[in-house]
Amino acid sequence: MRKIALLVTSGILSAFFASSCSNNNKESQCPCKEKKECAVNSEGKCGGCAEHKDHQQPSDSLPLDEKKAQYMRMAIDLSIKSVNEGGGPFGAVVVKDGEVVAASANRVTINNDPTAHAEVMTIRNACQKLGTFDLSGCELYTSCEPCPMCLSAMYWAHISKYYYANDQFDAAKIGFDDAFIYEELDKPIENRTLKRVQMLRDEALEAFKQWASKGDKTEY
Amino acid sequence: MRKIALLVTSGILSAFFASSCSNNNKESQCPCKEKKECAVNSEGKCGGCAEHKDHQQPSDSLPLDEKKAQYMRMAIDLSIKSVNEGGGPFGAVVVKDGEVVAASANRVTINNDPTAHAEVMTIRNACQKLGTFDLSGCELYTSCEPCPMCLSAMYWAHISKYYYANDQFDAAKIGFDDAFIYEELDKPIENRTLKRVQMLRDEALEAFKQWASKGDKTEY
Repeated sequence: MRKIALLVTSGILSAFFASSCSNNNKESQCPCKEKKECAVNSEGKCGGCAEHKDHQQPSDSLPLDEKKAQYMRMAIDLSIKSVNEGGGPFGAVVVKDGEVVAASANRVTINNDPTAHAEVMTIRNACQKLGTFDLSGCELYTSCEPCPMCLSAMYWAHISKYYYANDQFDAAKIGFDDAFIYEELDKPIENRTLKRVQMLRDEALEAFKQWASKGDKTEY
Repeated sequence: MRKIALLVTSGILSAFFASSCSNNNKESQCPCKEKKECAVNSEGKCGGCAEHKDHQQPSDSLPLDEKKAQYMRMAIDLSIKSVNEGGGPFGAVVVKDGEVVAASANRVTINNDPTAHAEVMTIRNACQKLGTFDLSGCELYTSCEPCPMCLSAMYWAHISKYYYANDQFDAAKIGFDDAFIYEELDKPIENRTLKRVQMLRDEALEAFKQWASKGDKTEY
Protein backbone atom coordinates (compact mmCIF):
# COMPACT_ATOMS: atom_id res chain seq x y z
CA MET A 1 0.00 0.00 0.00
CA ARG A 2 2.86 2.32 0.92
CA LYS A 3 4.64 1.43 -2.33
CA ILE A 4 1.54 2.32 -4.31
CA ALA A 5 1.29 5.67 -2.48
CA LEU A 6 4.94 6.38 -3.32
CA LEU A 7 4.47 5.46 -6.97
CA VAL A 8 1.47 7.77 -7.14
CA THR A 9 3.47 10.55 -5.42
CA SER A 10 6.37 10.01 -7.76
CA GLY A 11 3.97 10.12 -10.71
CA ILE A 12 2.45 13.40 -9.55
CA LEU A 13 5.88 14.99 -9.09
CA SER A 14 7.00 13.75 -12.53
CA ALA A 15 3.89 15.21 -14.12
CA PHE A 16 4.70 18.57 -12.54
CA PHE A 17 8.37 18.61 -13.43
CA ALA A 18 8.86 16.35 -16.45
CA SER A 19 9.33 18.45 -19.56
CA SER A 20 12.11 20.91 -20.31
CA CYS A 21 11.55 24.60 -19.70
CA SER A 22 11.33 27.38 -22.25
CA ASN A 23 12.73 29.76 -19.64
CA ASN A 24 16.22 28.23 -19.88
CA ASN A 25 18.88 30.77 -19.05
CA LYS A 26 16.27 33.42 -18.36
CA GLU A 27 15.17 33.59 -14.75
CA SER A 28 15.26 30.31 -12.86
CA GLN A 29 12.68 30.04 -10.11
CA CYS A 30 14.80 27.50 -8.33
CA PRO A 31 15.69 28.91 -4.89
CA CYS A 32 19.35 28.27 -5.72
CA LYS A 33 19.02 31.23 -8.12
CA GLU A 34 21.45 29.59 -10.54
CA LYS A 35 20.38 29.82 -14.16
CA LYS A 36 20.74 26.21 -15.21
CA GLU A 37 18.60 23.89 -17.30
CA CYS A 38 15.08 24.09 -15.92
CA ALA A 39 12.19 21.67 -15.57
CA VAL A 40 8.68 22.87 -16.23
CA ASN A 41 5.59 21.90 -14.29
CA SER A 42 2.20 20.90 -15.69
CA GLU A 43 1.17 24.55 -15.93
CA GLY A 44 4.19 25.52 -17.97
CA LYS A 45 5.77 27.23 -14.97
CA CYS A 46 9.47 26.78 -14.35
CA GLY A 47 9.83 24.28 -11.54
CA GLY A 48 13.48 24.90 -10.71
CA CYS A 49 16.76 23.95 -12.30
CA ALA A 50 17.45 20.35 -13.20
CA GLU A 51 20.39 20.06 -10.82
CA HIS A 52 18.29 21.17 -7.87
CA LYS A 53 15.08 19.26 -8.36
CA ASP A 54 14.71 18.99 -4.61
CA HIS A 55 14.10 22.73 -4.47
CA GLN A 56 11.23 22.68 -6.94
CA GLN A 57 8.17 24.68 -6.01
CA PRO A 58 4.65 23.24 -6.06
CA SER A 59 2.20 25.01 -8.34
CA ASP A 60 0.72 28.19 -6.84
CA SER A 61 -2.79 27.05 -7.78
CA LEU A 62 -2.75 24.01 -5.47
CA PRO A 63 -4.91 24.15 -2.33
CA LEU A 64 -2.87 24.79 0.86
CA ASP A 65 -3.18 21.24 2.19
CA GLU A 66 -1.90 19.79 -1.08
CA LYS A 67 0.99 22.24 -1.10
CA LYS A 68 1.89 21.14 2.42
CA ALA A 69 1.75 17.52 1.31
CA GLN A 70 4.11 18.35 -1.55
CA TYR A 71 6.61 20.07 0.77
CA MET A 72 6.57 17.02 3.01
CA ARG A 73 6.93 14.73 0.00
CA MET A 74 10.06 16.68 -0.99
CA ALA A 75 11.46 15.98 2.49
CA ILE A 76 10.46 12.31 2.20
CA ASP A 77 11.93 12.06 -1.31
CA LEU A 78 15.24 13.40 0.03
CA SER A 79 15.16 10.90 2.91
CA ILE A 80 14.73 7.98 0.50
CA LYS A 81 17.41 9.23 -1.93
CA SER A 82 19.74 9.71 1.04
CA VAL A 83 19.61 6.00 1.91
CA ASN A 84 20.76 5.15 -1.61
CA GLU A 85 23.51 7.78 -1.48
CA GLY A 86 24.94 6.52 1.83
CA GLY A 87 23.47 9.14 4.17
CA GLY A 88 20.99 8.78 7.04
CA PRO A 89 17.29 8.29 6.11
CA PHE A 90 16.17 11.85 6.82
CA GLY A 91 15.21 14.90 4.76
CA ALA A 92 13.93 18.40 5.48
CA VAL A 93 12.61 21.46 3.68
CA VAL A 94 12.25 25.10 4.81
CA VAL A 95 9.35 27.07 3.34
CA LYS A 96 8.69 30.81 3.52
CA ASP A 97 5.56 32.51 2.14
CA GLY A 98 4.69 29.36 0.19
CA GLU A 99 8.12 29.10 -1.48
CA VAL A 100 10.70 26.39 -0.79
CA VAL A 101 13.78 28.23 0.47
CA ALA A 102 16.10 25.28 1.11
CA ALA A 103 16.12 21.50 1.33
CA SER A 104 18.63 18.93 2.50
CA ALA A 105 19.04 15.31 3.44
CA ASN A 106 21.03 14.14 6.45
CA ARG A 107 24.78 14.46 5.74
CA VAL A 108 26.33 13.14 8.98
CA THR A 109 28.38 10.28 7.53
CA ILE A 110 28.93 11.85 4.10
CA ASN A 111 30.24 15.19 5.47
CA ASN A 112 31.83 13.73 8.63
CA ASP A 113 29.68 16.11 10.66
CA PRO A 114 27.62 14.75 13.57
CA THR A 115 25.60 18.00 13.56
CA ALA A 116 24.61 17.62 9.88
CA HIS A 117 21.11 16.35 10.57
CA ALA A 118 18.62 17.19 7.81
CA GLU A 119 16.94 19.94 9.85
CA VAL A 120 20.22 21.62 10.86
CA MET A 121 21.53 21.43 7.27
CA THR A 122 18.30 22.91 5.92
CA ILE A 123 18.27 25.72 8.50
CA ARG A 124 21.90 26.53 7.61
CA ASN A 125 21.11 26.49 3.89
CA ALA A 126 17.98 28.62 4.29
CA CYS A 127 19.94 31.19 6.31
CA GLN A 128 22.60 31.36 3.60
CA LYS A 129 19.92 31.83 0.91
CA LEU A 130 18.07 34.53 2.85
CA GLY A 131 21.21 36.20 4.25
CA THR A 132 20.03 36.09 7.85
CA PHE A 133 20.36 34.08 11.06
CA ASP A 134 16.65 34.61 11.81
CA LEU A 135 14.09 32.38 10.06
CA SER A 136 11.02 33.98 11.67
CA GLY A 137 8.04 33.34 9.42
CA CYS A 138 9.57 30.15 8.00
CA GLU A 139 8.06 26.69 8.42
CA LEU A 140 10.09 23.48 8.44
CA TYR A 141 9.00 20.11 7.01
CA THR A 142 11.00 17.14 8.25
CA SER A 143 10.59 13.48 7.32
CA CYS A 144 11.11 12.55 11.00
CA GLU A 145 10.34 14.10 14.38
CA PRO A 146 13.36 16.26 15.30
CA CYS A 147 15.91 15.18 17.89
CA PRO A 148 16.64 17.61 20.78
CA MET A 149 19.57 19.14 18.83
CA CYS A 150 17.39 19.90 15.80
CA LEU A 151 14.43 21.06 17.89
CA SER A 152 16.72 23.45 19.79
CA ALA A 153 18.19 24.65 16.48
CA MET A 154 14.63 25.44 15.35
CA TYR A 155 14.14 27.56 18.48
CA TRP A 156 17.43 29.42 17.88
CA ALA A 157 16.45 29.98 14.23
CA HIS A 158 12.94 31.17 15.23
CA ILE A 159 11.18 28.68 12.96
CA SER A 160 7.45 29.46 13.25
CA LYS A 161 6.00 25.94 12.97
CA TYR A 162 7.12 22.50 11.93
CA TYR A 163 5.62 19.44 10.27
CA TYR A 164 7.01 15.93 10.73
CA ALA A 165 6.20 12.47 9.34
CA ASN A 166 7.96 9.56 11.09
CA ASP A 167 8.15 9.87 14.86
CA GLN A 168 10.96 9.28 17.37
CA PHE A 169 9.68 5.77 18.09
CA ASP A 170 9.90 4.82 14.41
CA ALA A 171 13.46 6.21 14.45
CA ALA A 172 14.37 4.25 17.59
CA LYS A 173 13.19 1.01 15.91
CA ILE A 174 15.84 1.40 13.18
CA GLY A 175 18.62 2.35 15.60
CA PHE A 176 18.38 6.16 15.88
CA ASP A 177 17.79 6.55 19.56
CA ASP A 178 16.97 10.23 20.06
CA ALA A 179 15.05 9.12 23.15
CA PHE A 180 18.40 8.49 24.86
CA ILE A 181 19.29 12.19 24.55
CA TYR A 182 15.83 13.31 25.69
CA GLU A 183 16.19 11.06 28.75
CA GLU A 184 19.68 12.39 29.45
CA LEU A 185 18.47 16.01 29.32
CA ASP A 186 15.68 15.13 31.76
CA LYS A 187 18.05 13.63 34.35
CA PRO A 188 19.59 15.64 37.21
CA ILE A 189 22.91 16.81 35.77
CA GLU A 190 25.01 14.70 38.17
CA ASN A 191 23.29 11.52 36.93
CA ARG A 192 23.96 12.08 33.22
CA THR A 193 26.28 9.82 31.24
CA LEU A 194 28.21 12.80 29.87
CA LYS A 195 30.15 14.18 32.86
CA ARG A 196 31.12 17.81 33.27
CA VAL A 197 33.30 20.05 35.42
CA GLN A 198 33.02 23.80 35.96
CA MET A 199 36.26 25.80 36.07
CA LEU A 200 37.63 29.35 35.69
CA ARG A 201 34.21 31.05 35.79
CA ASP A 202 35.78 34.25 37.19
CA GLU A 203 38.05 34.56 34.16
CA ALA A 204 35.34 33.70 31.64
CA LEU A 205 32.98 36.37 32.95
CA GLU A 206 35.23 38.98 31.33
CA ALA A 207 33.75 38.19 27.88
CA PHE A 208 30.21 38.59 29.22
CA LYS A 209 31.17 41.89 30.88
CA GLN A 210 32.56 43.17 27.58
CA TRP A 211 29.45 41.96 25.71
CA ALA A 212 27.13 43.70 28.20
CA SER A 213 28.94 47.02 27.84
CA LYS A 214 29.35 46.86 24.03
CA GLY A 215 27.16 49.42 22.30
CA ASP A 216 27.15 48.18 18.69
CA LYS A 217 26.63 44.45 19.22
CA THR A 218 24.43 42.28 16.98
CA GLU A 219 22.07 40.38 19.28
CA TYR A 220 20.39 37.13 18.29
CA MET B 1 41.28 41.06 40.11
CA ARG B 2 39.87 39.36 37.01
CA LYS B 3 41.85 41.76 34.81
CA ILE B 4 45.04 40.86 36.67
CA ALA B 5 44.32 37.15 36.19
CA LEU B 6 43.83 37.74 32.47
CA LEU B 7 47.06 39.72 32.19
CA VAL B 8 48.92 36.93 33.99
CA THR B 9 47.32 34.34 31.67
CA SER B 10 48.23 36.40 28.65
CA GLY B 11 51.80 36.70 29.94
CA ILE B 12 52.10 32.94 30.44
CA LEU B 13 50.80 32.24 26.93
CA SER B 14 53.18 34.85 25.44
CA ALA B 15 56.11 33.26 27.25
CA PHE B 16 55.19 29.89 25.75
CA PHE B 17 54.68 31.09 22.22
CA ALA B 18 56.73 34.24 21.74
CA SER B 19 59.82 33.43 19.67
CA SER B 20 59.97 32.16 16.09
CA CYS B 21 60.39 28.46 15.42
CA SER B 22 63.38 26.72 13.89
CA ASN B 23 61.03 24.07 12.51
CA ASN B 24 59.60 26.45 9.89
CA ASN B 25 58.42 24.57 6.82
CA LYS B 26 59.32 21.25 8.38
CA GLU B 27 56.50 19.66 10.33
CA SER B 28 54.09 22.08 11.95
CA GLN B 29 52.52 20.80 15.14
CA CYS B 30 49.58 23.12 14.70
CA PRO B 31 46.44 20.97 14.42
CA CYS B 32 45.65 22.78 11.16
CA LYS B 33 48.56 20.78 9.67
CA GLU B 34 49.46 23.71 7.44
CA LYS B 35 53.17 24.35 7.24
CA LYS B 36 53.24 28.05 7.93
CA GLU B 37 55.46 30.27 10.06
CA CYS B 38 55.57 28.70 13.51
CA ALA B 39 55.82 30.01 17.05
CA VAL B 40 58.02 28.19 19.55
CA ASN B 41 57.21 27.63 23.21
CA SER B 42 59.54 28.10 26.16
CA GLU B 43 60.92 24.58 25.70
CA GLY B 44 61.83 25.16 22.07
CA LYS B 45 58.90 23.06 20.93
CA CYS B 46 56.83 24.27 17.98
CA GLY B 47 53.64 25.74 19.37
CA GLY B 48 51.61 25.88 16.19
CA CYS B 49 51.58 28.14 13.15
CA ALA B 50 51.37 31.88 13.62
CA GLU B 51 48.06 32.16 11.78
CA HIS B 52 46.41 29.64 14.08
CA LYS B 53 47.58 30.74 17.51
CA ASP B 54 44.27 29.63 18.98
CA HIS B 55 45.26 26.06 18.23
CA GLN B 56 48.53 26.23 20.11
CA GLN B 57 49.32 23.33 22.39
CA PRO B 58 50.34 23.74 26.02
CA SER B 59 53.73 22.32 26.92
CA ASP B 60 53.73 18.54 27.47
CA SER B 61 55.60 19.02 30.76
CA LEU B 62 52.77 20.96 32.44
CA PRO B 63 50.81 19.16 35.20
CA LEU B 64 47.37 17.95 33.98
CA ASP B 65 45.42 20.57 35.94
CA GLU B 66 47.48 23.37 34.46
CA LYS B 67 47.02 21.94 30.96
CA LYS B 68 43.27 21.88 31.53
CA ALA B 69 43.38 25.48 32.68
CA GLN B 70 45.26 26.39 29.50
CA TYR B 71 42.68 24.64 27.27
CA MET B 72 39.93 26.56 29.04
CA ARG B 73 41.89 29.80 28.75
CA MET B 74 42.08 29.22 24.99
CA ALA B 75 38.27 28.95 24.94
CA ILE B 76 37.96 32.08 27.11
CA ASP B 77 40.46 33.96 24.94
CA LEU B 78 38.35 33.13 21.87
CA SER B 79 35.18 34.27 23.65
CA ILE B 80 36.75 37.67 24.46
CA LYS B 81 38.20 38.12 20.94
CA SER B 82 34.79 37.22 19.53
CA VAL B 83 33.12 40.18 21.26
CA ASN B 84 35.59 42.54 19.59
CA GLU B 85 35.11 40.84 16.20
CA GLY B 86 31.30 41.13 16.31
CA GLY B 87 30.44 37.54 17.28
CA GLY B 88 28.75 36.18 20.40
CA PRO B 89 30.87 36.00 23.61
CA PHE B 90 31.57 32.28 23.48
CA GLY B 91 34.54 30.06 22.64
CA ALA B 92 35.28 26.33 22.67
CA VAL B 93 38.17 23.91 22.22
CA VAL B 94 38.22 20.16 21.51
CA VAL B 95 41.13 18.18 22.95
CA LYS B 96 42.18 14.60 22.20
CA ASP B 97 45.03 12.78 23.98
CA GLY B 98 46.29 16.06 25.41
CA GLU B 99 46.40 17.81 22.00
CA VAL B 100 44.13 20.64 20.88
CA VAL B 101 42.31 19.35 17.81
CA ALA B 102 40.11 22.36 17.01
CA ALA B 103 38.92 25.65 18.45
CA SER B 104 36.27 28.17 17.48
CA ALA B 105 34.35 31.16 18.72
CA ASN B 106 30.62 31.61 18.21
CA ARG B 107 29.89 32.56 14.57
CA VAL B 108 26.08 32.96 14.57
CA THR B 109 25.86 36.56 13.41
CA ILE B 110 29.10 36.56 11.40
CA ASN B 111 28.24 33.41 9.38
CA ASN B 112 24.46 33.97 9.35
CA ASP B 113 24.07 30.54 10.94
CA PRO B 114 21.93 30.16 14.09
CA THR B 115 23.54 26.74 14.67
CA ALA B 116 27.09 28.16 14.69
CA HIS B 117 27.50 28.15 18.45
CA ALA B 118 31.11 27.77 19.58
CA GLU B 119 30.64 24.13 20.62
CA VAL B 120 28.93 23.11 17.36
CA MET B 121 31.57 24.93 15.28
CA THR B 122 34.37 23.28 17.24
CA ILE B 123 32.82 19.81 16.94
CA ARG B 124 32.46 20.32 13.16
CA ASN B 125 36.04 21.54 12.87
CA ALA B 126 37.41 18.69 14.98
CA CYS B 127 35.53 16.15 12.83
CA GLN B 128 36.99 17.69 9.67
CA LYS B 129 40.51 17.56 11.14
CA LEU B 130 40.19 13.96 12.31
CA GLY B 131 38.18 12.77 9.27
CA THR B 132 35.40 11.23 11.35
CA PHE B 133 31.92 11.94 12.68
CA ASP B 134 32.79 10.23 16.00
CA LEU B 135 34.73 12.21 18.61
CA SER B 136 34.88 9.39 21.18
CA GLY B 137 37.85 10.02 23.45
CA CYS B 138 37.71 13.77 22.90
CA GLU B 139 37.02 16.33 25.62
CA LEU B 140 35.41 19.71 25.02
CA TYR B 141 36.23 22.95 26.83
CA THR B 142 33.62 25.68 26.50
CA SER B 143 33.66 29.17 27.97
CA CYS B 144 29.96 28.80 28.86
CA GLU B 145 27.63 25.97 29.89
CA PRO B 146 26.23 24.49 26.66
CA CYS B 147 22.67 25.15 25.49
CA PRO B 148 20.46 22.11 24.74
CA MET B 149 21.46 22.20 21.04
CA CYS B 150 25.16 22.08 21.86
CA LEU B 151 24.74 19.53 24.63
CA SER B 152 22.80 17.27 22.24
CA ALA B 153 25.49 17.80 19.58
CA MET B 154 28.06 16.59 22.13
CA TYR B 155 26.01 13.41 22.64
CA TRP B 156 25.76 12.82 18.88
CA ALA B 157 29.52 13.41 18.53
CA HIS B 158 30.28 11.08 21.48
CA ILE B 159 32.31 13.70 23.35
CA SER B 160 33.67 11.93 26.45
CA LYS B 161 33.57 14.78 28.97
CA TYR B 162 33.20 18.53 28.97
CA TYR B 163 34.45 21.49 30.98
CA TYR B 164 32.63 24.81 31.18
CA ALA B 165 33.27 28.21 32.80
CA ASN B 166 30.30 30.61 32.79
CA ASP B 167 26.96 29.01 33.55
CA GLN B 168 23.51 29.34 31.94
CA PHE B 169 22.46 31.87 34.59
CA ASP B 170 25.42 34.13 33.74
CA ALA B 171 24.37 33.80 30.07
CA ALA B 172 20.73 34.64 30.85
CA LYS B 173 21.86 37.83 32.64
CA ILE B 174 23.37 39.17 29.40
CA GLY B 175 20.41 38.15 27.24
CA PHE B 176 21.23 34.58 26.12
CA ASP B 177 18.28 32.72 27.51
CA ASP B 178 19.08 29.03 27.00
CA ALA B 179 16.77 28.40 29.96
CA PHE B 180 13.82 29.19 27.68
CA ILE B 181 14.71 26.23 25.43
CA TYR B 182 15.31 23.92 28.40
CA GLU B 183 11.87 24.90 29.75
CA GLU B 184 10.25 24.35 26.35
CA LEU B 185 11.76 20.85 26.05
CA ASP B 186 10.44 20.03 29.52
CA LYS B 187 6.85 21.00 28.68
CA PRO B 188 4.25 18.56 27.36
CA ILE B 189 4.56 18.90 23.57
CA GLU B 190 1.09 20.43 23.14
CA ASN B 191 2.02 23.28 25.50
CA ARG B 192 5.20 24.31 23.70
CA THR B 193 5.47 27.66 21.92
CA LEU B 194 6.72 25.99 18.73
CA LYS B 195 3.68 24.18 17.31
CA ARG B 196 3.90 21.03 15.22
CA VAL B 197 1.74 18.79 13.05
CA GLN B 198 2.34 15.16 12.05
CA MET B 199 1.53 14.16 8.46
CA LEU B 200 2.27 11.48 5.82
CA ARG B 201 3.93 9.05 8.27
CA ASP B 202 2.94 6.08 6.10
CA GLU B 203 4.83 7.48 3.14
CA ALA B 204 7.87 8.52 5.17
CA LEU B 205 8.30 5.04 6.66
CA GLU B 206 9.56 3.87 3.24
CA ALA B 207 12.98 5.49 3.90
CA PHE B 208 13.25 3.73 7.27
CA LYS B 209 12.27 0.41 5.65
CA GLN B 210 14.98 0.83 3.04
CA TRP B 211 17.51 1.82 5.73
CA ALA B 212 16.65 -1.24 7.85
CA SER B 213 17.15 -3.62 4.92
CA LYS B 214 20.33 -1.96 3.57
CA GLY B 215 23.36 -4.16 4.13
CA ASP B 216 26.25 -1.73 3.60
CA LYS B 217 25.00 1.28 5.54
CA THR B 218 27.26 3.48 7.69
CA GLU B 219 25.62 3.74 11.12
CA TYR B 220 26.30 6.58 13.53
